[in-house]
Amino acid sequence: MEIMMTESHKYLITSNETESSGEDDRPPLMQQDSETSILPRQSRSRRRKCSVLPTVDTVIETTIKKGASNIISSKFESLDYDLMENYLTQSETWKSYNFILYKDFARWVIFFLIGVLTACIGIFIDISIEFIAVFKYSTLKRYLDNSGNTGMLVPLAVWLGFNIVPVLIGSLLVVYVEPVALGSGIPQVKCYLNGIKMPRLVRIKTLVVKTIGVITTVVGGLAGGKEGPMIHSGAIVAAGISQGKSTSFGTDFQIFKYFREDHEKRDFVSGGAAAGVAAAFGAPVGGVLFSLEEGASFWNQSLTWRIFFGTIVTTFTLNVVLSAYYGHPGELTNSGLLNFGKFYDLRYDLLEMFFYVGAGVFGGLTGALYNSLNHKLTVFRIRYMSARYVKVLEAVLVAMVSACVPIIMIYSIDDCRPLGEDPTEHAVQMYCGDGEYNTLAALWLQVPEKSVRTMLHDPKGAFGVFSLSVFVVTYFLLSVWTYGVSVSGGVFIPCLLTGAAWGRLFSLFLQSIFPEATWIDPGKYALIGAAAQLGGVVRMTISLTIILIEATGNISFGLPLMLTLITAKWIGDFFTEGLYDIHIQLSGIPLLAWDPPPLSSNITARIVKSHPVICLRPLETVGNIIDVLKATSHNGFPIVDVEPMTKHSSDGAEQSSAGSTDSHKGDTSHKRDSSHKGDASHKGDASRKDSPGRLVGLILRSQLIILIKHKIYKENQNWPDDQLSSEIFHAEYPRYPSVNDLVVSENDRSFTVKLNLFMNTSPFSVQDSTSLPRVFKLFRALGLRHVVVVNNNNHVVGMITRKDLARYRVWRHGGRMGLEELKISSTL
Amino acid sequence: MEIMMTESHKYLITSNETESSGEDDRPPLMQQDSETSILPRQSRSRRRKCSVLPTVDTVIETTIKKGASNIISSKFESLDYDLMENYLTQSETWKSYNFILYKDFARWVIFFLIGVLTACIGIFIDISIEFIAVFKYSTLKRYLDNSGNTGMLVPLAVWLGFNIVPVLIGSLLVVYVEPVALGSGIPQVKCYLNGIKMPRLVRIKTLVVKTIGVITTVVGGLAGGKEGPMIHSGAIVAAGISQGKSTSFGTDFQIFKYFREDHEKRDFVSGGAAAGVAAAFGAPVGGVLFSLEEGASFWNQSLTWRIFFGTIVTTFTLNVVLSAYYGHPGELTNSGLLNFGKFYDLRYDLLEMFFYVGAGVFGGLTGALYNSLNHKLTVFRIRYMSARYVKVLEAVLVAMVSACVPIIMIYSIDDCRPLGEDPTEHAVQMYCGDGEYNTLAALWLQVPEKSVRTMLHDPKGAFGVFSLSVFVVTYFLLSVWTYGVSVSGGVFIPCLLTGAAWGRLFSLFLQSIFPEATWIDPGKYALIGAAAQLGGVVRMTISLTIILIEATGNISFGLPLMLTLITAKWIGDFFTEGLYDIHIQLSGIPLLAWDPPPLSSNITARIVKSHPVICLRPLETVGNIIDVLKATSHNGFPIVDVEPMTKHSSDGAEQSSAGSTDSHKGDTSHKRDSSHKGDASHKGDASRKDSPGRLVGLILRSQLIILIKHKIYKENQNWPDDQLSSEIFHAEYPRYPSVNDLVVSENDRSFTVKLNLFMNTSPFSVQDSTSLPRVFKLFRALGLRHVVVVNNNNHVVGMITRKDLARYRVWRHGGRMGLEELKISSTL
Repeated sequence: MEIMMTESHKYLITSNETESSGEDDRPPLMQQDSETSILPRQSRSRRRKCSVLPTVDTVIETTIKKGASNIISSKFESLDYDLMENYLTQSETWKSYNFILYKDFARWVIFFLIGVLTACIGIFIDISIEFIAVFKYSTLKRYLDNSGNTGMLVPLAVWLGFNIVPVLIGSLLVVYVEPVALGSGIPQVKCYLNGIKMPRLVRIKTLVVKTIGVITTVVGGLAGGKEGPMIHSGAIVAAGISQGKSTSFGTDFQIFKYFREDHEKRDFVSGGAAAGVAAAFGAPVGGVLFSLEEGASFWNQSLTWRIFFGTIVTTFTLNVVLSAYYGHPGELTNSGLLNFGKFYDLRYDLLEMFFYVGAGVFGGLTGALYNSLNHKLTVFRIRYMSARYVKVLEAVLVAMVSACVPIIMIYSIDDCRPLGEDPTEHAVQMYCGDGEYNTLAALWLQVPEKSVRTMLHDPKGAFGVFSLSVFVVTYFLLSVWTYGVSVSGGVFIPCLLTGAAWGRLFSLFLQSIFPEATWIDPGKYALIGAAAQLGGVVRMTISLTIILIEATGNISFGLPLMLTLITAKWIGDFFTEGLYDIHIQLSGIPLLAWDPPPLSSNITARIVKSHPVICLRPLETVGNIIDVLKATSHNGFPIVDVEPMTKHSSDGAEQSSAGSTDSHKGDTSHKRDSSHKGDASHKGDASRKDSPGRLVGLILRSQLIILIKHKIYKENQNWPDDQLSSEIFHAEYPRYPSVNDLVVSENDRSFTVKLNLFMNTSPFSVQDSTSLPRVFKLFRALGLRHVVVVNNNNHVVGMITRKDLARYRVWRHGGRMGLEELKISSTL
Repeated sequence: MEIMMTESHKYLITSNETESSGEDDRPPLMQQDSETSILPRQSRSRRRKCSVLPTVDTVIETTIKKGASNIISSKFESLDYDLMENYLTQSETWKSYNFILYKDFARWVIFFLIGVLTACIGIFIDISIEFIAVFKYSTLKRYLDNSGNTGMLVPLAVWLGFNIVPVLIGSLLVVYVEPVALGSGIPQVKCYLNGIKMPRLVRIKTLVVKTIGVITTVVGGLAGGKEGPMIHSGAIVAAGISQGKSTSFGTDFQIFKYFREDHEKRDFVSGGAAAGVAAAFGAPVGGVLFSLEEGASFWNQSLTWRIFFGTIVTTFTLNVVLSAYYGHPGELTNSGLLNFGKFYDLRYDLLEMFFYVGAGVFGGLTGALYNSLNHKLTVFRIRYMSARYVKVLEAVLVAMVSACVPIIMIYSIDDCRPLGEDPTEHAVQMYCGDGEYNTLAALWLQVPEKSVRTMLHDPKGAFGVFSLSVFVVTYFLLSVWTYGVSVSGGVFIPCLLTGAAWGRLFSLFLQSIFPEATWIDPGKYALIGAAAQLGGVVRMTISLTIILIEATGNISFGLPLMLTLITAKWIGDFFTEGLYDIHIQLSGIPLLAWDPPPLSSNITARIVKSHPVICLRPLETVGNIIDVLKATSHNGFPIVDVEPMTKHSSDGAEQSSAGSTDSHKGDTSHKRDSSHKGDASHKGDASRKDSPGRLVGLILRSQLIILIKHKIYKENQNWPDDQLSSEIFHAEYPRYPSVNDLVVSENDRSFTVKLNLFMNTSPFSVQDSTSLPRVFKLFRALGLRHVVVVNNNNHVVGMITRKDLARYRVWRHGGRMGLEELKISSTL
C-alpha cells in the first residue's frame, strides 16, 4: 500500500483535507464492528455543513511562479452539457412530436450550411495564399536570378519586405484585436470540446482575425500551416450559424433559437471542427474522428452521423471549387487544403516494418525535443514577454530570420540538379551550371505545403545529403521558435515538412546500407518520417492516423502509418506531454483527461470536494439571492430543505432564517485562504449547523439572474402561467447579465422567489464515499458542470466541479509514474 | 399538454402505477404553496418501502401471443459495465503502476492476436468456399453444356444435390448443435455490445458451427453471405482470447485472468466485432465505427485506438495471405472477403444527385417491403414452426428452390451475349448461338459475391432488361425467404446483389431517357442501387457508409453514397424498423436505444422503477441471504441501514430483525401478479414500514454467492486478511455457481456476513423525481445494470434495470409518433 513517489511528484497534496483518506475511514478487514464503518467516523471526516452564506473555497492561494505547469486557473468556467430540467421544461416537452421532427430537420440544414461555409472559408484562404504566393515567389525568383548583378543584398531586402509586411499585419491583428486567434487554435478548440468555456473563441471577430492572420503567416514565409486555423474557423462557423446571432455584429436573426444552450452549441461546434479538419486535409472520416477524439464524452449516434454529413459536404464543396479553380473542373483532385498528391505505389516489405518502427522512435525523440524546447520558450515568453509591442517585435524578428535563413542556404549550398527531371515551380540557377537549378531555392521558393509535396514525390536523389541535413536542422529550429509567436498558424505543416525531410535522409541512409534494395522509395520514407515527426509532437492517435490515410488516399498503407504513429507516441510520451497539452497546462486550463488517473480509487469524493457549499432554500428571499450571487462566482447552488423531516410547515420561519444571513453580504469567497475555513462560516446560523440541509434540487446562477431580472416573485405574480416558458432562460444565452447589472430596490429584497419551481429536482449527486474514478466517469460521461456531494442522509456536504477533478493528474515520464495534485490559482 | 395518440400506440400504459404521473405531483405554477411540492404528496406517490423479503415485481403476466413485437422477455440479463468497487478493490489498486502498464501492454497483445486470428478464420472460410464453389460450378457447367443430350432434368438433379447436401449439413448443425449460430449474428452481437447477456453467443462451439454453417450456406447456393457471420466470428475470437479459457473445451490457460469481468470482456468483443467487419469488407475504419455505432456508450479513447490497431492487423493479414493465394503475392489486392473490385472512374455530375436520391427512395421502399415480408414470415415461423425437424425441412426446401429457380431462368430466358467481351467464369452456351453465352447462366454459376462484382463492373449492355427484371424479383423474394431460415448466413450480399441488379436496370432506364448522356455508367448505378437496397434493409448509418466507401476504395464517391443511404434510411424508417431491430424485438430482447424516447420527461423514476425492492442489511445472516437468493433472480441488492439516525449502535437488534424475516423464505417474486402488491409484502416486518432503510451500498448476486461458497462469515474468520483478494470474485467469471449448488448447513444459517466490507458503498442512485431521459442517459452512458431509486431522505424506494427503461419506446411509422410501453413477459 505505498504510493510510488517520483521526481515529478513534486507537488504534494497540500490541503489538510487529505489526511482523512478514504482508506483510513474503513475498518481493517474482519476485525472491527461493521456498523461503524458505514458512516465515516465523525472525528476524521470533518464534514462541512451546507451554509447559506459564502465562506471559503478550495482555492489555494500561493505565490505562483509564472509559467508553472502545476497550476489550474480558477478563471475558466465549464460548459454545461447537462440539460436544464424543471417544471417548465417538463411541461414544454409535451409540445408535439412535430416540433421534434422539425428540430431534427433544422439540425441537418445547419450541418449542411456548416459544411458549405467552412469549405468557402477554406477556399478563400487557399486562393488568397496561392495568389499572393505566386506573386511573391515569382518576384523573388526574378531578383535571385538577377543576383549575379545586384549581389545577394537586394534579393534579401526584397525577401525581408515580403515577409515582414504580412507578418506585421497579422501580428498586429492578433496582438491588439483578438489575442485568442493566436497559434493554431486546435488547443483552444480541444478545450472547448472538452467542456470549457473559452471566452471569445467562437466569435465572428475571431474568425476574421484568424482568416487574415493565417494568410499573412503563410505568405509571410513563417513555418506555420493553415490546417489548425482551418479547424478553428470551422468551429466558429458552426457556432455562428447554429446560434443564429452574432455578438460581434450585435445582430440576432431570430432563427434556431431553440439551439441556444451549451448542449446544442457544443454539438454543432464539434461538427464545425470536424468540417474544418475535412477542409484542411480532405479527410471527412478523419474529421469525424477528430471531433470524437477531442470532444466526445457520450457517443451520440445521430450527432456523429450528422457530423459526417457535414464533413462530406465540406470535402465535396471544396473539391469541386478548387478543382475548377486550378483548371481541372469535375476532376475532384483537390480534396483538401493540404494535399499529399497521389501515391500510386506504396508497396512495402514485411522487413521494412522495423524501419518504420525505427522512424517512429526517431520521430518520438525529435518530437519530445521539439516539445521540450517549445515548452521552455513558452515559459520564457510568459515570464518576460507580456508587453504587447514585444510580441509584435518577436513576430517581426521571426519573419526576418525566416527570410535570412533561406537566402543564406541558397547562397551557400550548391545542391544542383538538371532541369526538367523533377517538377519545379520556380527554378533558380544561382551558381549552378546551365540547365541546372538550385534545389534548395526550389524548396524555399514555395509555400511549405508544396514543399511537403516536393519531399513526398520528387524522385530519388532530388536532394543531396548535406542540403537535406542543413534544411532539417534549420527548419526544425525555426518551427520550434515559430510556434507560440503572436501570429495565427498551425504546427502540422512545419512538422510534416521537417519529418518528410529527415524521412528522405533516412531513405538515403538505408540505400547506402542496402544498395541493391528496390523497396527503398524516398517518397514513402518521407511520408513515414512526416507521420513520425507529427505524431511525436502532437500525440494524437486515431484521428491523426485516419487523417494521414485519407490524405495519402491509400488504405493499404494504413498499417505502416499506424505502427509509426504508435511508436512515436509511446516514445514521445516517455519524455514529455504532447505540444497541445503543454500549452493547455501552461494556460492553467482544467482539461479533463479521457480516463481518471489510475490507482486513484482510494481518493474519495470527501477529499475531492469543495466545501462548504453555498446553498439556497426552496423559498428564498431576493435579498439573500442577490447577496449570494454578488459574493461568489459559483454557477450552481444546491437547494436544501433546511428543516428535514418537518416538511416546511412554516413559511415565516424560513424567511426569518433567510434574513439572518443578510448581514454577510459582500463576502467574497475566492480571496480567502484555505486556512480560514471552518471558523467564520456559520456565524448567525449556528442553529442550522447540526441539522444541515437535505438536497432537494439545484439551481443555476443564470436562472437566478433571469428570475430576479424579470421579477418573478411569489408576492408579485406579474407573469401569467401561460407566458412563463423556459425560453426566458435561453433568450440571453450565452451572455447573461451580471448580478451587478440587476436593479433591485430595497423593497424587493424582502420578496421571495419560489426556487423549487425552477430548480432541477434531480441533480446528479454522489455519496461522499464515492471514489475519484467513479465521480470522474460520471462527470465525464455526462458532461456535467457540478456534482453535489451528499452523505448517507442526503445532506449536502460539498460540491465537485471540473477543477476539483482536473486537479488530480498522473505524470508518467521517464517510465515512472506518480499522482500529483495541481494547485488552483485565481491570479493566473 | 396532450399526448398524441397514434395507431401504433396500441399498448397503453397498463400498470396502475402510472396514474401518478410526474406532472400531477407538481403544483400549478405560482398558485400553491411551494413547500408541498418538494416532496411528492404521500397520497399519490404510493411509494413502496424496501423489504427484506421478496414480494412482487413489475413483471406483467398476460397471455402473450407468440410473435408479438410489444413484449420484452424477462429472461435476458444485462452485462455490468460498471466496475465492482469495495474495500478490496480500493486497496488492491495500490499494487503498482507497473501492473497498470503491464495490463495495458497485454491489451495490445490481445488485440494483435484478435486481428490475426479473425483474419485466419476469414481466410479459411474464403478459401474453403472458393475451393468447393469452383468444383460445384464447373461440374454444373459441364452438365448444362451437355443438357442438349440429357435434357434439363439431369443438370437440375445435380444442382439439387449440390445445394441440398451442404445446406442439410449446415442446417442440422444450427438446429441441433448450436441454435445461436442461426442467421447473420449481427443482431446478436449488437445486443451483446448493447450490454445484454446473450447465452452461448461467444463460445468456441458457436464459432465452429458458424464457420461450417456459413461455408455450407454459400456453397449450398442460398441467398446468404459470409459477412455477418464473419463479424460474429470475430466477436467469439475476441472473447476466447481475452478470457484465456474456453467453456466448450473446459480448459483454462490461466492467462489474462485480470480481464475476466464484463467490462473488459465487452471491450474486447467490440474489438473482435470490428476485426470481423474489417475482414469481411476490407474496411478497418468501418469496423471501428461499426463497433462504436453498435456498442459504444462512453467513448473510450484508448480502446478505440486499440480496436483500430486490431482492424488494421486483420486487414493486413487477410490481404497478404489472400493476395498470395490468388496468385498476386505482395500486391495487396484482396483487402476483404467482399471485394467490390477497383473503381477507376467514379465521376459524377451534380444533376445526378437527384437520381441518387431517387435510388435512395426506391431502396427505402423495397427495403421496407423486404422487412415487412420478412417480419410476417418470421412471426409465422415463431408460431407454427417450432419443431426442429420442420426447421431443417424448411432449409432443405429453400435449398431446392434455390436450385430450381436458376435452372428455370437459364432454361427459359435467352439473354445471349458474344463471348469474350465480358469477364465470365463459367460461360454456358445453352440455346445461344455459337460464340455466345447465356448471361443468366453466367450470373448464377458463381457465388453471390462474384455476382455482385459482375453487376458492378460488367460493361454497358451486359444484361438485358427482361432478364435483369426477372432476376431482381426472384432474387428479392428468395432472399426474403432465406433470411431467418435455420442456417448461418448474412443479409448483406443478397441485398447488395438485388440492389446492384435494379441499379443496373435504373441505369438502362436513365439511358433511354437521356440517350446522349455520357455520365450513365451502369456500374456506378449498380453501386448506388446496392447501397440503397442495403441501407433500406439494415438502416445502419455511419458505419455502413464508411464500409461502402472503403469497399469501393474511392472517397470522392462518399457524398453520393451517403446521400443515397440517408434517403433510404429516412424512407425506410417511415414504414418499418430495420431488419435487425425487427428480429431483436421479436426475440423480446431489451435493447436500449441510443437516446431516450423524446417527450418522455414527464415520466419519472417513480413510475419507471420496479418495486418493492429486496434489500439486505450491512450485517446479514447467511440464512436470510440464501432465502433471498433462492426466492429471486435479481442481480443487485441494495444494502440498507434499517434504523436511520441511530447509526447502528446495536448489533443484536440487527440480528433479531433479520431473524424475523426468515419465515418468508421460498417466496418467489416473478410469479405474482402486480395486483397483489402492497398487501403481503411487509408482514412480520411492520415496524420497519415507517422507517424504511437508508441506502448505504449495493451488493451483487455473484458476490453473495462467492461469499457464502467460501464461508466468509463474521463468526468464522477462516480467511486471513492478506489472502482475501478481489480475485476470488473474478475466478469463476462468467458462470458463477447457482444458489442451489451452495451447501449451507443449518448451523451456518445463523452466521452473519459483513456485507458492508464487500458492497459498493457508492452505487449510482437517482431521486424518484428524476425524469426518464435523465435516468436513461445515466444508465446508458455508464453502461449500468442497476440504478437504485431513492427518495429525498436517501431511503430506497425502487430499482431501475435495463428492462424498466427498455419498456418505453417511440413508434414513428407513417409520419406519426407515439409513446408505447412494452409488456414484460417471463414466458417468452
